[in-house]
Parts: sequence; C-alpha cells; structure tokens
Amino acid sequence: MSQAIKAVLFEQSEITSIANELGKDSLMGKSLTKLIEDTDAFMALGVEVPGHSEAGGYAHNRHKQNYQYINQAGRLFLVTGEDKYAQYTADLLLAYADKYLKLDYHEQLNTNPPGRLFHQILNEHVFLLYSSLGYSCIRHWLSAEQQQTIIDGLFQPMLDMFTDKYEFDFDRIHNHGIWAVAAVAMCGLAIDKPEYVEMSIHGLKGDDIEGGYLAQISKLFAPSGYYMEGPYYHRYAIRPLCLFAEAIHRHRPELDIFNFNGQVIGKTVKAMLATAYPNGVFPALNDASLTMDICDAGVIVALSLYAKHYGIDDDILGMAQIQDTVWVNACGQALSSAFDNNEAALNPCWASVELNEGPNGDRGAQAFLRMQSNKGDVSQLVMNYGQHGMGHGHFDTLGVSFFNNGQEVLREYGFGRWVNVEPKFGGRYLDENKSYARQTIAHNAVAVDQKCQNNFDVKLADSRHGEPHFFSGDDKEIQGVSAFCRDFYEGVDQQRSLLMINDERLAQPILVDLYRLTSEVAHQYDYALHYDGQIVRTNFDYQTHAELSTLGDDFGYQHLWNVGQGKAKDTTLVSWLQGSSYYTWLTASSEEDEVIFTRSGANDPSFNLRSEPGLVLRRNAKDTLFANVLETHGYFNEAIEASTEARGQITEVKVIGTNEQGSVIEIIAKDYSIIVMVSNQVGVTDESKTSVTFNNQDFQWQGYFAVEVRG
Amino acid sequence: MSQAIKAVLFEQSEITSIANELGKDSLMGKSLTKLIEDTDAFMALGVEVPGHSEAGGYAHNRHKQNYQYINQAGRLFLVTGEDKYAQYTADLLLAYADKYLKLDYHEQLNTNPPGRLFHQILNEHVFLLYSSLGYSCIRHWLSAEQQQTIIDGLFQPMLDMFTDKYEFDFDRIHNHGIWAVAAVAMCGLAIDKPEYVEMSIHGLKGDDIEGGYLAQISKLFAPSGYYMEGPYYHRYAIRPLCLFAEAIHRHRPELDIFNFNGQVIGKTVKAMLATAYPNGVFPALNDASLTMDICDAGVIVALSLYAKHYGIDDDILGMAQIQDTVWVNACGQALSSAFDNNEAALNPCWASVELNEGPNGDRGAQAFLRMQSNKGDVSQLVMNYGQHGMGHGHFDTLGVSFFNNGQEVLREYGFGRWVNVEPKFGGRYLDENKSYARQTIAHNAVAVDQKCQNNFDVKLADSRHGEPHFFSGDDKEIQGVSAFCRDFYEGVDQQRSLLMINDERLAQPILVDLYRLTSEVAHQYDYALHYDGQIVRTNFDYQTHAELSTLGDDFGYQHLWNVGQGKAKDTTLVSWLQGSSYYTWLTASSEEDEVIFTRSGANDPSFNLRSEPGLVLRRNAKDTLFANVLETHGYFNEAIEASTEARGQITEVKVIGTNEQGSVIEIIAKDYSIIVMVSNQVGVTDESKTSVTFNNQDFQWQGYFAVEVRG
Repeated sequence: MSQAIKAVLFEQSEITSIANELGKDSLMGKSLTKLIEDTDAFMALGVEVPGHSEAGGYAHNRHKQNYQYINQAGRLFLVTGEDKYAQYTADLLLAYADKYLKLDYHEQLNTNPPGRLFHQILNEHVFLLYSSLGYSCIRHWLSAEQQQTIIDGLFQPMLDMFTDKYEFDFDRIHNHGIWAVAAVAMCGLAIDKPEYVEMSIHGLKGDDIEGGYLAQISKLFAPSGYYMEGPYYHRYAIRPLCLFAEAIHRHRPELDIFNFNGQVIGKTVKAMLATAYPNGVFPALNDASLTMDICDAGVIVALSLYAKHYGIDDDILGMAQIQDTVWVNACGQALSSAFDNNEAALNPCWASVELNEGPNGDRGAQAFLRMQSNKGDVSQLVMNYGQHGMGHGHFDTLGVSFFNNGQEVLREYGFGRWVNVEPKFGGRYLDENKSYARQTIAHNAVAVDQKCQNNFDVKLADSRHGEPHFFSGDDKEIQGVSAFCRDFYEGVDQQRSLLMINDERLAQPILVDLYRLTSEVAHQYDYALHYDGQIVRTNFDYQTHAELSTLGDDFGYQHLWNVGQGKAKDTTLVSWLQGSSYYTWLTASSEEDEVIFTRSGANDPSFNLRSEPGLVLRRNAKDTLFANVLETHGYFNEAIEASTEARGQITEVKVIGTNEQGSVIEIIAKDYSIIVMVSNQVGVTDESKTSVTFNNQDFQWQGYFAVEVRG
Repeated sequence: MSQAIKAVLFEQSEITSIANELGKDSLMGKSLTKLIEDTDAFMALGVEVPGHSEAGGYAHNRHKQNYQYINQAGRLFLVTGEDKYAQYTADLLLAYADKYLKLDYHEQLNTNPPGRLFHQILNEHVFLLYSSLGYSCIRHWLSAEQQQTIIDGLFQPMLDMFTDKYEFDFDRIHNHGIWAVAAVAMCGLAIDKPEYVEMSIHGLKGDDIEGGYLAQISKLFAPSGYYMEGPYYHRYAIRPLCLFAEAIHRHRPELDIFNFNGQVIGKTVKAMLATAYPNGVFPALNDASLTMDICDAGVIVALSLYAKHYGIDDDILGMAQIQDTVWVNACGQALSSAFDNNEAALNPCWASVELNEGPNGDRGAQAFLRMQSNKGDVSQLVMNYGQHGMGHGHFDTLGVSFFNNGQEVLREYGFGRWVNVEPKFGGRYLDENKSYARQTIAHNAVAVDQKCQNNFDVKLADSRHGEPHFFSGDDKEIQGVSAFCRDFYEGVDQQRSLLMINDERLAQPILVDLYRLTSEVAHQYDYALHYDGQIVRTNFDYQTHAELSTLGDDFGYQHLWNVGQGKAKDTTLVSWLQGSSYYTWLTASSEEDEVIFTRSGANDPSFNLRSEPGLVLRRNAKDTLFANVLETHGYFNEAIEASTEARGQITEVKVIGTNEQGSVIEIIAKDYSIIVMVSNQVGVTDESKTSVTFNNQDFQWQGYFAVEVRG
C-alpha cells in the first residue's frame, strides 16, 4: 500500500471525491450501493475459473462475470479501501494466470476467430479490457512477483494473440475493432508497455489510416455521428470508444481527444442518445432487440463521459434520471453532482434530429421527430431513409416506427433471435431473421409485388440509400419529414412524407403519412402496419377465415397468416386498443383496395417467431398515394374498469390530388377539417412556392408543406 | 357552520385526527394528497349533469364521476374545512335535484330494470349511496331550503323508485341487493328517515328472512366466507357491505354488527383477501377480468375496515403496502397508524386456505395453496372444486391456475368481455364468453370427448359441485390438495391431486399434478394447459401446420387453432419462456398420446378474443393418470442480454402405478429423484395408512400423501 496508485482511469483526488458519496442518496451514492451489493453477492460464490462451454453456456457466462467482477472489485478497493476487494481481484487474476495457457483454443464456429476462453475473440477482447482496468486498480497492492505472474500468464499471451496471431483482425475499421484496440491499449497502460498504447491509437503501421483508434473514430461514423448498423450495435461500440477516449485524455493529453476531428466523440455519443425513445429504449433499427435501452452499461459510461466533457442540460439530466445510476468514475461524479444541484422538474423532449449517413453525410439519413402533447407526453417518429446497415441491415428503407404514451405503437419486429437463450440455437441469429425479420413486409412500409426491397440482395442494398427530401423538426405544432427511395423495386419510385400535427382539440399529435408510389406499369402495393393489442372496431365488412393459410410463399409472406380480409371503403378505418390507449388508423381508399389482417408465426417449425398482429392495405396501381392518419385517443384501464373516448375525432381522409408538384389531402373530424399540402418537387426548400390545381381547386403554399385547419 | 356535523361515517374527533395527517408521508397522508389532487382536477371541469348515453358512453361515465366526486368533495370539506369543496358538492347535488325528475327512464336492455340516469338501477343504487354520503358531509353547511330541494328533487324520488316501483328488486339475496339496501339505508341516515334504515337492515317485511342486509350477509356467503361468484364479484359486493356495516356499527350499535353471525363480515372480507395472488391481483375465478386487484375501491374500504375491527398482522400490512393508500375514514386511520408503527420488513405469505362453498359449507371448496421459495418468492396454486357460480360460472371444476415470480403461469383466460369499452358491444359480455371463455377447454383441466363439463348446462352444473378429498397447506416444504368430480362427463369420474414440493436444489417449488380419470368405456381425454410466452424447446418431434384449421366445431374447440402437433414420448417435455422465467412442463406419456399446440382466436369474426397459446395432451383411454411436473427455473433479461439455467433440472416423469388406493410416480432430476405417493381412497385422513404394490415394488405411507427424495 505504500506504492502510488496506478489506476488507468482514476487519480487519488477523484477517488476521495467519489468515496465521499458512499451511503448518500445521490446518483453516485446509489451507484456505489448497487455496485457493493452486486459485487459482494458475487464474491460470496468464491473464485471459479471454468473451462469451455458454448456461447450462453455456463463457462461462457462465468468468464463474462469474472472479468466484470475483476473490474468492479478493483474499483471498489480504491473507493472503499477494503482489502477484501483487492484480494478477490488478485485471486481471480492469479487463477486466470495459472489456467489461461493450459486452455486450448475453442473450435472456430463463425468468421470471428476463437479465443482460449470464449468461442470468439470479441469476448476475449472484452475480458482483456476489463481485467486490465481491474488490475490497474490493485497493481500497487500486488507484489512485484504477483504482477509478473499475471502479466506472463494472462496479459502478455492475450496481447500476443490479438496483435500477432490475429493481427489481421486488429487493424480493422469495424465496431468490434474498437474493442480490440481499447483492450490492448488499456493493458498497455496497466502494465507500462507504451508500444501497445501506440499501436492501438495509431494502428499497427502507425499511419492512422488502416487501423487504430483514431482511424476508426474518423471512419466509422457519419458526420452526424450516426453509426450505420443502428443504435443496438452503436451502444455496444460506444463502451470501448468512451473508455479508451477517457484513457487517452488522461495519458496522452497532447492528442486533445475530446476535440479530435470536430469533437467526433461527443457528436457520436449525442447522435446515439438522440435516437432513443422517450422511455430510454432504443428503436430497433436494423438487427436489434426491442428492449435495449439507455441503461445499458455502455450508455451509462457514454452519458457520464458526455456530461463531463461536453456539457449538461435537461436532456442529459432526464436520461440520468432514467438510468438512475452513473459511471463510477470522475465523469459520473460530475453528472451526479449536476443532477443533485438541479432543482427544476425534468420534462425533457430531445430535439428532433435528422442524422445523415455515410462518410460524407450524403448517403441518406435517419429521421427522429419528437413532439410533446398538450399534457407533455412525447410522441416520437423514426423514419429510415439512409444506408442498408451491412450484414445486420433490414430491407426497410422508408420504413417507420412510432411511439407515444410510453409504448411503441407502429412497431418494429426487431431481430429474429433469442439473445443468449442457449436452447434457441445458442442465442445466435435464427433462420427466421433472414426469412422474416429483415424482409420489407415485416416493417411498416410498402412491399411491392410480394417481394423484398432490392430483392433481399445485401450487396445491392449496400450500394444504395434513401434520398432526403425535406426535414422540418423545430416547430411545436407541425413537423414533417419526406424522402425518396428510387428503384429499390425495379421501375418503382417511392416517396414517403410524414407529418406530426398538434391541435388543442387533440389528445395527442396526429400522425399523417403520405406514401406515394409511381411506376410505368401496374404493381401490387402492400402498405403494411404492425400494431399491438386488440382490434376494437372497423368501418368496413370483412371475413375472418375459417381456415388459415399464409399470405405468400416467400419474402417473409410465408410467415404471415391471412387471418381475415375485406374490401376497403372510401375511408377505411381500423381502431385498436394497446395498453391504456386507443389508436385509430384511417386511410383514403376505395372498394378496389383490400384490407388483410395478418399474424406472424406461419412456417415456423421451432416457434422461433413471436405471434404478432398486423394490417395490410393492398392496392393494384401504377401511380398511387396512400394517405393515412393515425389518431391516438382515449384511455382504458381494465383494473379500475375505466374507458373514455374509445372512438376518435377523425372520421374521414380524402385525397384531393397528387402529382409531381405536390399532394393535397383533407382530414375530416367531427366539427373541423385539416387540409395538408406537401411538396413533391425534388430540391424543394423552405422558400419554394408550390401551386397545384386539383378538381378546379387551387392550392398554393411556400416551403415543404402547409397545414390549414378549417372550423 | 354553526350546526353540528351529521356525517354518516364521521365524528368530529375522527375528522380532527385524519386532518392531522394532511401533507404527511403516512398512508393516510398520501391518500389525502391523492384525493385532493384528483378532486381538484375534476372540480376544474365545472358542474355538468348530462342526460342519457349507453353504458360506457359519455353521460354514463359523467354520472359515475359525479357521484364519486360528490362523495370525495364532501369528505374533503370535512377534512380540510375549505368551503370550495362544500360548494362543489352542493352545486352538483342541486343540479341533480333540478334535473332528475325531468329525465325519463332508460329503455330496458337486460333483466336489470332501468333508472333515470343509468341503463340499470344497479348504477343508480351506487349513485344514491355515494351522493347520500357526500350530502351527509355538507348537510350542516346547507340551508334548510337547500336540504329540502335535494331531498324532494333527488333523494326521495330515488328512494321511491328503489323501495316501491322496483320493490321486487329490493328484497333480493344477491350481490346487487347489497348495493340496494346500503344505498337506501345511507340515504335514510343522511336525511333522518329511520324507516328506510329499518327496511334496509331487516327487509321490507322486517323478518330478516326474505330480504334486507342481515338476511343477505347470512345467506350470501359460505361458512368459510367465500362468495360463490368468485372474487371479481365478491370485491364488488364487499364495498356496500362494508360501508353499511360501518354505518350500522355507528348508528345501530345494539346490533353488534361486527360480531353478527359468527363475525361473518370479518370472515368474508378475509376470505376474499385470501384469494389474491401475491401481487394483489385476484385470480379470475368464473367470469372475471385478469387485472382486478386489491387496489379496487371496495377492497381498500374492506382492508381498512378489517384492520380496525378485526386486527392487523403482517399479511394485512403487506396488502396495505400494495394498496399504498387507505380508506379516508377512521378505519383507514387505524391501518395507516399501524403501518407507520411497523418497523420490520414485510415479506408476507398468506396462509394456504381451503374455502368451503354452499350455505352449509358442504358443496365443495376452492383451494389456495401458497409456498415460499428459498429466496422468498411466493408460489400460489388455485384449484376449483366448488360450486358452479351461477350465471357467471365457468365449466372448469378441477381447473387450476398457478402463479409465481410475479406472474400467472398456468393461466386463466378470464371473461370474454372488454369491460366498459363502448364499441365492444357496450362493454358487456360478448358471445365469445359463452362460446369460449366459459368452456372447459379454455381452462387448465381435462376436456372429455371434445365436450364441456355438464354439457354447458348451467342448471345441471348449478346442481352439482366438486368433492374435497384432502387439503394440506401448513407445511413449508410440501403441500397438497386433491378433489373428485364425478359424472360431470357422463360415466367419467375425475380426481385431481396437486402438490407443491420445495427442495433446496430447486429455484422454486415444483408443481406436481396427478390427474386421474376412470370410466367403463374409452374416451378422448384432452389435458389442456394455457401458458404465455415463447416455446424454447421440446423433446419430441412435431409438425407445425402449413395451413391452420380449428381443433373442433363446438364447446370452445371451434375457437382454437391447431398450430402443430406430434407424437408424445415416454416423458414429454415442453419448455417456454415467460417474462424473465423459464418453465418446463414434463408429463409421463407414450407414443399413443399426442401433443397439440393451440392458439385462441379462430371463428372470431369481430376480434373479440385475445390470441393466446396453449397445449393439449390428448390420450384415448378408459382409466388413466396424467402425471405432470412443472418446473420453474433460470432467469432471462433481454435488455441486459442475460440468460441463466435455460434448461431445468428435471428430465423424466414416470408413473409407477395407480389404482383406487393410490398413485405413485417418480420424478427424475439430474442427480436425484423424487417419489410421490398420493392416496386415492375416499375418506382418507392424515392417520390413514395406504399400501400399494406396483411392479413388485411395495409402497406404504401414512396420511394423504408422501414424498421421498432419493439422492
């Protein structure tokens, strides 16, 4: 204990400040209490270093826990000064040092090379990162001999494996690559081998081009900060990204990392946070679970780091409130103090934002529109008109999801995977991920001729992207977004324009969806919506089927039961109850159109799919406009047997006209109506003037769109 | 304000004591805060007395709110002394006095006669009860003229309607009847007309036989306190029952109402509370919603009343903790004080209880077994072997439901009704309630020859009941219940025995289910289980169907899709994931048996049914024993991507033998096995000795059952 502390991410003064929060009700105090309870419970199980198991199996899980608790116990030793934590950290590290080289490599299962502890070295990188951090917290407490044992038996063999044996994997611009460089650099810092820090920062060649952290953070993110695989993978990469940034900030201050490349670190953290729904859950863009949220360990690190180095506002504090914890580090301490000092009630609504994609920001974008209801609830619309997302990409350009009243309303299916559920194919991606979850029809979008966008060709899809048309997200009453998607189905151009419109007579903003398709020849257009809950009423006749067959044979249709169908009307209405809210969808249609009620789960021999309902509005046309409104209304609470406003206000939706210049529709409520005019002209600006005449009525407006409430 | 307070349920000293809690963090303090916020919000809407609407419609809801706020505002006037509450109460009452007689009667829609405000006088009774209580709180504040206006325009016409025009409905031994007498009595007390109090207590004839409160509480409940329609209707009747009891206690102390008839009031309150799941939700016995819980207004009154007049223990405090509120009354004040004074951590597990049915307690029973896991979680088994439950009865004798880890695992479907959802048939019972929800196959029971118990004949079913065999609910490691049900299917006798067995090696008690059927001739036996969540694995081959058809044409089978099926094995295993828990069901079977995966929702033209999964084990036999084990294991959390013990410990279930004396089965886990022996002898006592020989093995035990763990 006479030696100075050599922790990679802590200085003595910071430790003192954090220790001062022990037992307090601050975010840091609560974080420490949880950390102590959790660590003590695991330490009671003793030290165990198992051999191999498959992913999700016992040994796999135990190794994951072991690195986590090496890190946690190490930190708690610094904060509490209790020897038992140092002892436990040392015992685990020494046990690994004894066993590591006695373990063979796993069998190679996928493209990711195997490690000695885990089936893929990605996990082994994480092990090195956390065990190095834990080691650095107790290094001064260990004897020189113990230090050498751990280095020789564990750390050096791992470093050799990552930078020599698997050299090809170390220099890679990929989210996994950040784990590799962060792990090697942390270890280099923890055992005083600066050469590993250098190669991690600048790449094996030292040129900042082919590999290394600086190259990665320069190339992985769009100028907006968006990560093309979506928030689910972004939040996984953000953890090593932030840990490494904090380490560089402390140990290579000359790099001024937090201002590097136009503050790319702050930008990409903020972009990730800005995708989240108001309840903190990330929208399932591309392959993703439906429940990953800002309480993920990486996001906790990222939010604390952002707060310390880039500033704190109500949006950040609102997320800290959801997390109810902070990173146990000086960054977290800064956020905790700010949270304590804040006296105003938090009712944050993150600004609407369009996040561009591609290295130059010119490969489409992802839109996140947010608007507060009169009572303060936040509605969020997510629309994808960016890139495909590589191997994890879904074929859902122009697809949307929508959230309000604390729940996702127009729903993403998420990935076809039961993550870490070992009996479900080892927790890995299932066949149904390809055959259903990634297909166009599984999304809230239009599927053409019962096929998938880009014919489910990943390479073709990766070569394309959506085209932003307009984005207007500042207004509190009307916001809008529009984009094109050309030739994703051969010969078919698509434009989707969405508006959120607030009115004092409405419980929540209505969502207006103008989905325009044009083609030289006729196609079958399936406008699909995925909802949850129970159908309450419709305004048209339909037949539920006495026997169920699938909607088709391929492109995801083979997984959808055709539950019932009927002819559409002039305005077709379907209303449903989800949780405590009623929703009514209205669409301008005709008797030529058909409504099909669907349910997922057909051709699912292992019950890998969830059984979920959906709607399809089917139309045969060359050029057409699907004009839809979604109204949120009423309240239902079965437990107290309360129900109000089970029928919405809006009764009709009419297309007045649509052409290359613009689309005009009328939304009719009981005693008022809303005219919505949207520009379809490529290159429209907020100065552009549009003038159209439909049925002898003239409509003129300036800018992207106009909304006129009558009555 | 110079007049003395004449409130039916308050004395001045009680008001002072309650007012003392204003702004405090006690249960009473929190209750007052909520009451004030809620009442102020409604008062801001102003005074509005509308006309007619259908049930669940606007006027209906507004009248309901109006009586509620007359009562709340009246009470708040007493507690806070603020005139605005008296004024609001008076304004509403005077508005009704002005309008009531100008409103025509509703059209008669069902057997319940219509009122002037509501479509059925049941609601009008509730109106009178609450408006009388509210009136009594401000009576001393009103001028004599105002008092007379309210009496002449509102109260007297209602009293006349209930006791004269609808006299036939007033003297009725029925749960609705309690509302009638309580309302009339409260009004009699509030306006000083003791004749109405007398007829309410003793019936129109004054004989305590044909009608009146004393006759009702003597006849409506079994000696155990159980109410035959189940907790959903019990909790609705308990509100006027308790309000009236408290009023009698105060105004007719000579009746010693809380000791009346062997403390029937305390007994029936306790019986109702004892049915609740550990999370406070009531099991859906007979027609019932799945979410009705102890936070219902009536149960809040009942728990507070019980606490004051019958005593307080950890079970009562545990429920108060779930309610997080008390009745704003001297009873609630007593409970709130006790809760404040309690310093021990609450981890209540209500005692297991068998609640007998019928006026003499000899018409079967309902069993509620509860056992705590090693970590303290409460498992609860509910088994029905009582009466049919009249018009709201389900044909599910020997049916069970099972709860642990905070969720219902073997699930009740509940009623076929979207209560108060006006577009769903006015919120009333739907056709599917008869055609599906009340049928045997919709329950966790055996359906014979694809038919319903008692052929869905209510009259026949009401004439019968289950027969208790044994009940043993005191032990912390092993509990059991068994009952017979004879000839509910012609020529078929059924016995179901269930045990919960705890072992230190198990995460939760296992549920052992021995379902024995005997008949002279062969039948098709469908052992049905209704679960929730996702199938994780099975141990047998099955085929999901490419096209779906129904399981049958009648008796609920027409509403079940046959999703897939396969031949059973010696031990058939199906494992699923619900929320964060894994469940594995194992059954002793053979290749002659078939497993069918089902889903509800077929032949459902208006989407009235929920889409829910189920399992059927189908066997053709004369005499047979379904021997099943349900193991609860592991943990899953998608948001943090954690999964442990996705496979359970138990691998096999074997029937060693079964006959008229007893059944013996073996449950085999990885490194131990459990022999379960159950007596089938009618009249078994805990002294009885049973001796059976199967396959040359002798088994002997004393009492109802025996469990032997080997290894």
